[in-house]
Amino acid sequence: MPTDLDIARAATLLPIGEIAARAGIPDAALEPYGRYKAKLGLDFVAAQKDKPDGALVLVTGINPTAAGEGKTTTTVGLGDALNSLGTRTMIALREPSLGPCFGVKGGATGGGYAQVVPMEEINLHFTGDFHAITAANNLLAAMVDNHLYWGNELGLDARRISWRRAIDMNDRALRSTNVSLGGVPNGFPREDGFDITVASEVMAVFCLARDLDDLRVRLGRIIVGQTRDGRNVTAHDLKADGAMAALLRDALAPNLVQTLEGSPALVHGGPFANIAHGCNSVIATRLALKLADVVVTEAGFGADLGAEKFLDIKCRQAGLAPSACVVVATVRALKLNGGVAKSALGTEDVGAVTRGLPNLARHVQNMQKFGLPVVVALNRFTSDTEAEIGAVQTAMGRLGVEAILCTHWSDGAAGAADLARAVQALIAGKSARFEPLYSDHLSLAGKIETVAREIYHAERVSIPPPVAAKLKRFEEQGFGHVPVCIAKTQYSFSADPTLLGAPEGHVLPLREVRLSAGASFVVAIAGDIMTMPGLPRRPAAEGIGLDAEGRINGLF
Amino acid sequence: MPTDLDIARAATLLPIGEIAARAGIPDAALEPYGRYKAKLGLDFVAAQKDKPDGALVLVTGINPTAAGEGKTTTTVGLGDALNSLGTRTMIALREPSLGPCFGVKGGATGGGYAQVVPMEEINLHFTGDFHAITAANNLLAAMVDNHLYWGNELGLDARRISWRRAIDMNDRALRSTNVSLGGVPNGFPREDGFDITVASEVMAVFCLARDLDDLRVRLGRIIVGQTRDGRNVTAHDLKADGAMAALLRDALAPNLVQTLEGSPALVHGGPFANIAHGCNSVIATRLALKLADVVVTEAGFGADLGAEKFLDIKCRQAGLAPSACVVVATVRALKLNGGVAKSALGTEDVGAVTRGLPNLARHVQNMQKFGLPVVVALNRFTSDTEAEIGAVQTAMGRLGVEAILCTHWSDGAAGAADLARAVQALIAGKSARFEPLYSDHLSLAGKIETVAREIYHAERVSIPPPVAAKLKRFEEQGFGHVPVCIAKTQYSFSADPTLLGAPEGHVLPLREVRLSAGASFVVAIAGDIMTMPGLPRRPAAEGIGLDAEGRINGLF
Repeated sequence: MPTDLDIARAATLLPIGEIAARAGIPDAALEPYGRYKAKLGLDFVAAQKDKPDGALVLVTGINPTAAGEGKTTTTVGLGDALNSLGTRTMIALREPSLGPCFGVKGGATGGGYAQVVPMEEINLHFTGDFHAITAANNLLAAMVDNHLYWGNELGLDARRISWRRAIDMNDRALRSTNVSLGGVPNGFPREDGFDITVASEVMAVFCLARDLDDLRVRLGRIIVGQTRDGRNVTAHDLKADGAMAALLRDALAPNLVQTLEGSPALVHGGPFANIAHGCNSVIATRLALKLADVVVTEAGFGADLGAEKFLDIKCRQAGLAPSACVVVATVRALKLNGGVAKSALGTEDVGAVTRGLPNLARHVQNMQKFGLPVVVALNRFTSDTEAEIGAVQTAMGRLGVEAILCTHWSDGAAGAADLARAVQALIAGKSARFEPLYSDHLSLAGKIETVAREIYHAERVSIPPPVAAKLKRFEEQGFGHVPVCIAKTQYSFSADPTLLGAPEGHVLPLREVRLSAGASFVVAIAGDIMTMPGLPRRPAAEGIGLDAEGRINGLF
Repeated sequence: MPTDLDIARAATLLPIGEIAARAGIPDAALEPYGRYKAKLGLDFVAAQKDKPDGALVLVTGINPTAAGEGKTTTTVGLGDALNSLGTRTMIALREPSLGPCFGVKGGATGGGYAQVVPMEEINLHFTGDFHAITAANNLLAAMVDNHLYWGNELGLDARRISWRRAIDMNDRALRSTNVSLGGVPNGFPREDGFDITVASEVMAVFCLARDLDDLRVRLGRIIVGQTRDGRNVTAHDLKADGAMAALLRDALAPNLVQTLEGSPALVHGGPFANIAHGCNSVIATRLALKLADVVVTEAGFGADLGAEKFLDIKCRQAGLAPSACVVVATVRALKLNGGVAKSALGTEDVGAVTRGLPNLARHVQNMQKFGLPVVVALNRFTSDTEAEIGAVQTAMGRLGVEAILCTHWSDGAAGAADLARAVQALIAGKSARFEPLYSDHLSLAGKIETVAREIYHAERVSIPPPVAAKLKRFEEQGFGHVPVCIAKTQYSFSADPTLLGAPEGHVLPLREVRLSAGASFVVAIAGDIMTMPGLPRRPAAEGIGLDAEGRINGLF
């Protein structure tokens, strides 16, 4: 089998205007970026608002393992398959971050014959949205320190500045820094640090904003720190919100690209799901719903992180209600969850599959708790045996859920046709009764405890007294009604990445909480999760380069 | 008179394909970025190589003052005027940096009726080139610290790491930082700092590279630091050059836009002239020379900084030879140089003009030292009197140079027609005998001394012993043949920003030297010049925002 990059390069792409036309988008709505990417003007977006909505399908997965599950690949394959069956379908994905691209993960545009293209461009700068988000974040940071430098009229307490800088790079050296060193001309020394752009509040604001006005209002609401007596100071107080909105204006228009099979895909926004809310922009999802009968979208990492936040944060804030949910799994990943070593994955081991199945079962049941009908997509590998596959199908059958074999990775749309038919049936069945997991009125601690109990099966949440006091303060300041965005490892239902399967009775150790007043959620950081990843010993960047024809090698 | 932004907004832009067609660029060579910007494919660029070159005209100026001189405006006005006279002309400008845009300077796209458009987009993210340069710079930085973290196979001495991080923002808090704080998972603490992107070596490499191959080779040559025994460690040693080149690939294609009068303009690359080499990319300039009979280009700040580096660094490395030079001045700026307060500029003061004229005269004579025929463009303000203008013209006449009144700011091309005719005459006269100021073979200290003596009229250069030792070491390492890039204040011929006019007998105090092995020059930092600017008390950012129609306000 050729590599993803080989396949992407060998493809003949259609001019983006043709893809747009297929989706009913007039040429005048396009801002082309090269020949195969375009932004869709915000005027066009606004003009669709009275059209009826299509059905929303969420693709999520089990906890990720080293074996790979293929969630993006399934999102693309399912979208292509629905289109090939005659259902007018759009795909809504996140934009990749440069951090993982140069680190371990490679690209984030699907794989095999289920990819969005042009893959090199989408994986690198794409249309510059993340750069705009980084710039807006760092303009605010520069204006904070500049305010201190010129006399600090607002009385910001330099010890209580919570606004951090951002960079779209895996760079552990920037996690914890001292800035403004070197004397009078460089300002007042203080502790600072950088988060990866995809973990920043500006990214969250960008992805949750309904339109340009909402964007500006949310940006203005961002809290950068407190005064000595605990008053919040906002981006609006610093007069930074206008310039931040100006920096983000063009980026806020959704990006249209195509799949290898010519399906239209909106790829826009991209918060990480472990340290942020993990789904593409509200603007893109809502637009896609206006333009298509079915929209297939993805939430990052396992359903405990990505799907929970998609449903409790994005759907709650944007008034969205999914019609069906696809949970992606593989026999290999279940075997890893069942305790098999990666080197032994090629050998049949039904016992290991069975031991790993509780992970999948819990994710499925969690999605059912939200009132969503579920289908399992089982991405087939050649090493999977009939007995192993049968074990998965039997177990899912007991939950009233189909587990459907998929081969879109090697076969494109045809390999996801069965899955597409199952999804069509779930949509037609109209059995979805979507409800968020908790109500707005629950306390912030109560919301965290609800997610921990219901989704993670934790026995309890450990909240250190200073963290509890902070949550209380957020409530006193009028932010008690917002949802919570729990940051934890993606590898386990617990905060311990080594606890695979479906652990029970564990404790969720909260380390820190941050109020994202612009995004309208409270970030609750549990365990060792970092808001800035590091590079591995041999970063993927070492293998990336240009060939003699100037083409990019080493992305995968 | 309406503002620059009002004028730019009121303009009806032509589709970029029409502008391209006027310049003989086929549609297939265009990568559109929206409807009014396009990148020109590197294959198209390469295919022009055997065409004859047009004539190159350099626009430079006196030392900048608070009164404003209008160098970019003149570059645009002259280009428009040449086109309106029937000379096939292209304009080659630098891209604006976000730093000054949010600081004091506002935009950098010309002014009045001599602008390149779309001005908001060019001034903000444009086609993302600076973001790509920032990312490439910071990927290398992350790979340096990652190398230390994972065992430091190359033996880098953490105290001798010279590679700094970069951001396209005025942010004094980042000038001097400590990074990798916070314990074992975050690496080995060390001193670090950020330069503004336009002062980074990656920017210089980008602007000096002839093609993608040259870019990759130069990137690989970049020195990030030394081992304990003084061996240089390069980006190539860290295997970072390939990924950096991949990040820069699309950015390296020149950007085509238009002037308000429809002249084609390549706006590409943008190093500052006080702390870097100050001119647009070699690729864009060389392409423009293939496509037009005359190319008008600009070097930043005063001729002592921008033009000297344009001639000694860019023209030397790229094999370019200008045919003529335009030195821009205004009566108001000369009066400021003559000691008049800004508030008194409206009053006739021939004496002050006369006292300020030595500044202009020295810049003119300096350009003549390079073998270039010169014309002075005198941008007219309504407060200028006949006597004041006459004083300038008489003084220039004594140097054998015409001083031509220009009103392109208010009148567009028609206001620069006389200037255009004078430039046509200089080109037709073929009197240019371009020679760089110093030979490759001179020592590095000798090169610095030559520029200080011949251009700045300094009595001597003060080189602290450790700086002298560093220059010696660069020579021992085989870098003695490269040109020097002197970083100093733009406000004076000296390193003291308050010494206006044409100071003699001053001392140029070198503070630091840095080897840019990728760019192939040695940066010599003199006086207090910063490689990272700060924001003013009231940053321009405070006034930037979106209006009710989503248009950007506050750029100027």
